Amino acid sequence: MEILINKLKKAAPKVTLLMALATGAALQGCGGSEKANAQDDAVSADAATAVYVAPGEHDELYSFLSGGFNGQVSVYGIPSGRLLKVIPVFTQFAENGYGYNEESKAMLQTSHGFVPWDDLHHPKLSRADGMADGRWLFVNGNNTPRVARVDLKTFETVEIMEIPNSAGNHCSPYPTNNNEYVLAGTRFSVPLDMKGGTQDVSLSEYKDKFRGSISFIKVDKEHGDMELDFQVLVPGFDYDLANGGKGPSNDWVFFTTYNTEKSATLKELGASQNDRDYLAAINWKLAAKYAAEGKAKEMPANYYHNKMDEKSHIAKSTVKKTVRYLLPEDCPGMMYLLPAPKSPHGIDVDPTGEYMVVNGKLASSLPVFAFSKMMKAIENKDFDGDVNGIPVLKYESVLAAEVKEPGLGPLHTEFDGKGNAYSTMFVSSEVVKWSLEDFQVKDRMPVFYSPGHLMIPGGDTREPYGKYMVVMNKITKDRFLPTGPELMHSAQLIDISGEKMKMLLDFPTVAEPHYAQGIRADLVAPNSVKFFKLDENTHPEAVKNEKDVSVTRNGKTVKVNMTSIRSHFTPDNIEGVQVGDTVLFHVTNLEQDWDVPHGFAVMGANNAETLIMPGATQTLRWVPKQAGIFPFYCTDFCSALHQEMQGYVRVSPRGSKVPIKFSTGEKKPVPPATASVE
Amino acid sequence: MEILINKLKKAAPKVTLLMALATGAALQGCGGSEKANAQDDAVSADAATAVYVAPGEHDELYSFLSGGFNGQVSVYGIPSGRLLKVIPVFTQFAENGYGYNEESKAMLQTSHGFVPWDDLHHPKLSRADGMADGRWLFVNGNNTPRVARVDLKTFETVEIMEIPNSAGNHCSPYPTNNNEYVLAGTRFSVPLDMKGGTQDVSLSEYKDKFRGSISFIKVDKEHGDMELDFQVLVPGFDYDLANGGKGPSNDWVFFTTYNTEKSATLKELGASQNDRDYLAAINWKLAAKYAAEGKAKEMPANYYHNKMDEKSHIAKSTVKKTVRYLLPEDCPGMMYLLPAPKSPHGIDVDPTGEYMVVNGKLASSLPVFAFSKMMKAIENKDFDGDVNGIPVLKYESVLAAEVKEPGLGPLHTEFDGKGNAYSTMFVSSEVVKWSLEDFQVKDRMPVFYSPGHLMIPGGDTREPYGKYMVVMNKITKDRFLPTGPELMHSAQLIDISGEKMKMLLDFPTVAEPHYAQGIRADLVAPNSVKFFKLDENTHPEAVKNEKDVSVTRNGKTVKVNMTSIRSHFTPDNIEGVQVGDTVLFHVTNLEQDWDVPHGFAVMGANNAETLIMPGATQTLRWVPKQAGIFPFYCTDFCSALHQEMQGYVRVSPRGSKVPIKFSTGEKKPVPPATASVE
Repeated sequence: MEILINKLKKAAPKVTLLMALATGAALQGCGGSEKANAQDDAVSADAATAVYVAPGEHDELYSFLSGGFNGQVSVYGIPSGRLLKVIPVFTQFAENGYGYNEESKAMLQTSHGFVPWDDLHHPKLSRADGMADGRWLFVNGNNTPRVARVDLKTFETVEIMEIPNSAGNHCSPYPTNNNEYVLAGTRFSVPLDMKGGTQDVSLSEYKDKFRGSISFIKVDKEHGDMELDFQVLVPGFDYDLANGGKGPSNDWVFFTTYNTEKSATLKELGASQNDRDYLAAINWKLAAKYAAEGKAKEMPANYYHNKMDEKSHIAKSTVKKTVRYLLPEDCPGMMYLLPAPKSPHGIDVDPTGEYMVVNGKLASSLPVFAFSKMMKAIENKDFDGDVNGIPVLKYESVLAAEVKEPGLGPLHTEFDGKGNAYSTMFVSSEVVKWSLEDFQVKDRMPVFYSPGHLMIPGGDTREPYGKYMVVMNKITKDRFLPTGPELMHSAQLIDISGEKMKMLLDFPTVAEPHYAQGIRADLVAPNSVKFFKLDENTHPEAVKNEKDVSVTRNGKTVKVNMTSIRSHFTPDNIEGVQVGDTVLFHVTNLEQDWDVPHGFAVMGANNAETLIMPGATQTLRWVPKQAGIFPFYCTDFCSALHQEMQGYVRVSPRGSKVPIKFSTGEKKPVPPATASVE
Repeated sequence: MEILINKLKKAAPKVTLLMALATGAALQGCGGSEKANAQDDAVSADAATAVYVAPGEHDELYSFLSGGFNGQVSVYGIPSGRLLKVIPVFTQFAENGYGYNEESKAMLQTSHGFVPWDDLHHPKLSRADGMADGRWLFVNGNNTPRVARVDLKTFETVEIMEIPNSAGNHCSPYPTNNNEYVLAGTRFSVPLDMKGGTQDVSLSEYKDKFRGSISFIKVDKEHGDMELDFQVLVPGFDYDLANGGKGPSNDWVFFTTYNTEKSATLKELGASQNDRDYLAAINWKLAAKYAAEGKAKEMPANYYHNKMDEKSHIAKSTVKKTVRYLLPEDCPGMMYLLPAPKSPHGIDVDPTGEYMVVNGKLASSLPVFAFSKMMKAIENKDFDGDVNGIPVLKYESVLAAEVKEPGLGPLHTEFDGKGNAYSTMFVSSEVVKWSLEDFQVKDRMPVFYSPGHLMIPGGDTREPYGKYMVVMNKITKDRFLPTGPELMHSAQLIDISGEKMKMLLDFPTVAEPHYAQGIRADLVAPNSVKFFKLDENTHPEAVKNEKDVSVTRNGKTVKVNMTSIRSHFTPDNIEGVQVGDTVLFHVTNLEQDWDVPHGFAVMGANNAETLIMPGATQTLRWVPKQAGIFPFYCTDFCSALHQEMQGYVRVSPRGSKVPIKFSTGEKKPVPPATASVE
């Protein structure tokens, strides 16, 4: 530890805070005095007006923030900072039954069984010609390696792909400029031999036997469906973040690595020994060509691919048993290593595709590499040795410039499309604006506290929308009213339209946002689906007319095929169920209008509710454990008579002679559900 | 249905929307034209400034919104409308491991087994002398009847009490003015005979055999611990909402009923036959006296009482096997029925305790009862018959006044402490302000759309904080950027400090808020706990020093007693685990500072992460299914070296000879965790 501290002391002049963090000492009011950011009233009124979205008006942009340790995506409106929706992805979501109801359970299946949670770090919008196109959002599951796709027509997760030969899918996902591939790099290397899977190897053999992998996931142009095409097996480092080229560098993707020391323990020390780690550059087009031309070999594997059917809304899993791989040493010209500042986090390519910024969180300067120089160095074989047959380019040969004294703990950089870059400084708690022309710092803005990533809408594309910046802070402390030991993380919205940055707004954020994507509302909103068409519902248990409902027993299973419409369920009286039966309530929501979901729940179920969108069918499984009368009811306020929208199930003791019986209404006909009355 | 429609036609002039709702027709832009609420720029700028909380400043009030079908409580700051926290209560919460980790699982145990979800409708702050005191928040579980208590020192759920003889704990909770009792009424009646529990009875016997119950939960003055003292068994109606008296009416609690028709099917019709339902009035002090004096009988029951220990943070369940009950017919003077307008929702008592407003959602006028008249009517035996021996008071004898043409679909009323009442109109989508002096309407404010409850901070106490009102709307539609078929619900913040209401802000709300409570920040914030003291941690598996960590095998169970501190786990290398073992990671967070939780997760676990607050110990259970190297890591960004805070478990095939082995660091001593370096 002392070695590290001494190195840091030499490296940076104001290293006290970094030391404090590295050694676990308390963080108190870092980034300036408590009210350093308090502004005078006039500025404050300007900011108030800038972020105010009047009742009935809409936000200008959608932002999609990763939920980190909640495994979901949060959608915030910009500039208001209002939470518009939480999209369940990798984690059970009792609020609407995702991961609980029978239709969605398969989405969370993995080779390890049902995994009800993950750690979601990086949302990336799908792309057309290097610009976000608003069709899909790709996100990573960090803990049990997976990549998911959210459909932005419905804001629902429609596909989850498990990643084999990976352990911690952090360096992920990166879609190329037309979603040819979504790339996913492992965070942790694992013991791999090419005969398949992970091996029973001691941790003491880390240096020799552990490898990393970069997965190449092919994306269907029209429907977005993913397929794991092949993997590139890479040295046994830790892989942190990925980003890709644009324009001239279109064919290249870059990955930051750390722990090039290959330490398997106490990495805060062990992975901080080398002064430099690497930036890995892979020519994805060439890799695809090698794979297509037979260079890829096959190895045994075991991973799940889960897809939600668009018409039945039923998820199905496919288990894959092999994966193809390429070895860089067999594929000349496909992969290079560039010496990077110590333990880099973000790698960010500017809108022109010429500059690559490497955010070395333990380094004192911020190096910018030039793509043209990298190509020239490759051409000139300007190498400084190799790692496992992968050439290492010379630092000086690829360097465009170093941004001097940018701040402490640079983590991530985005761009405004006007020649400026903005970098977060985790340790000195600030955002630093610098120029891509002279690489000089132009402005600094303190943020509260400890920013990880920042996001400029389109800031990672060819043409950023350089009006706002959202900074995601890791420490919240005194920024909001206290809520006990556990606090939300927070974001700050900054106006970047002028020469100087202007702080606009603090807002708390659900769970732990890492990265985010922003996009103009008009690229998403017009495509938003309002309800599902009942006549397109292909769920095999759907009931599309109240007269077709049924309750049927088959052994110990009772199937209830029922409907919901304002303000009743059909049937709403069910008898003949017995203790220990498995009751499957298949509920079809007959509504055909926006914002009229019906929720369904039954007392005592070892299950969540299920929230059924108009036109869809969902199934709630219930195994009653006691005899009695069990009410069910609509759980989502739907009409003035919502409180009356309910029914009862009679559960008799096991072996009872009470026959299956069901009805709605007594001696009166069921009123036509959509009757219009003058 | 036509009977109802015809009645409604007679009852209200503008009944079209109610009919539309009652019949399930589409709701489109109710409440006025799309931009009816658009305000001119000056007003908008005022509103912007009024709701803007500048970066670094704090909100004026906490508001606690029920999450409805997410089973949690959401904490929003007022006036900013920012979500400060989601408090898990009745529903598994993978974000921090609540309901997943070993310590908290018992919180969700019920007589039906583990229930991972509920429907949380009504938060109520604990009280001292009729005022919210900021100590605890009581909330109801509607689906599987339960009452929970949240401790506002920690914002954590510390107690959950299951309610027997109930089915749908909607009419709940109501704390009396010094928390002598928290009352909880059943929504649905169930078949009860006093020999115990629910019975195997046909739904056709509803009218004869079903009964409701009101539970009296005693609350410990000092610690808040709950105990179910007794129940009052009441007629087989549906019970909707409760509220209690103040000042002169301190000893009384009032409950709205619907379905006094005792219909068991198609209640939208069956429960809407009678022109009047009832308001039930119970003298809780007299009931307690009857119970204390031996009037209460005992019946068998089966319900869980779950408590979180404050020092070990381990929840434990106790199963109760009997419950005491009172029958109103045996307890003269304890309970009366007051004829109420058709299908009432809210019952609200004004700050003086004299007026009871009965919000009959299908009625055309809003009746206000006078407590003094009620007492006089009781004294004079001014009865209109009885129900099961419970006297029914004459409507005219208790009526103070009817608010004429208040709007359509009145649901709920609160008070500003300045002589005014504010009622939500679900169908005509507005809030109506009226005077308690002359019972005349003073102002109307359209809201978007279909408001259920509204909340004025302290609006249900002796002294409301009459500056803001939060209206909770059920339909969102076009108010925010679209997010597919599923939309968040929404709230609107209204300035009620002047003669006319001023609309300030729309904000989306997590899941489905029903009711809310608001309280001045200074009554809660100063008591907020920042971290748990490590030396007070009584968890039997806690490790308070890195040198005391251990990994021990006992049969097929491997116990890992480990620690976390910035930026490493001890141990971080574990070998000797086998496929099929049950591994219990007992992780103690050694930090002693605010906002430094560490999260813990392991690849492939069929479990959520667990988020460990400073000073606490949490346990993650893992049964590995495959051999290999499994990384674990800190899931909550904690320091500049957070990415390095991880470790590995080697899992060998079943029956392997690899011995248990654990370590941190190689050949170097573990650095002292809190070392300070100049």
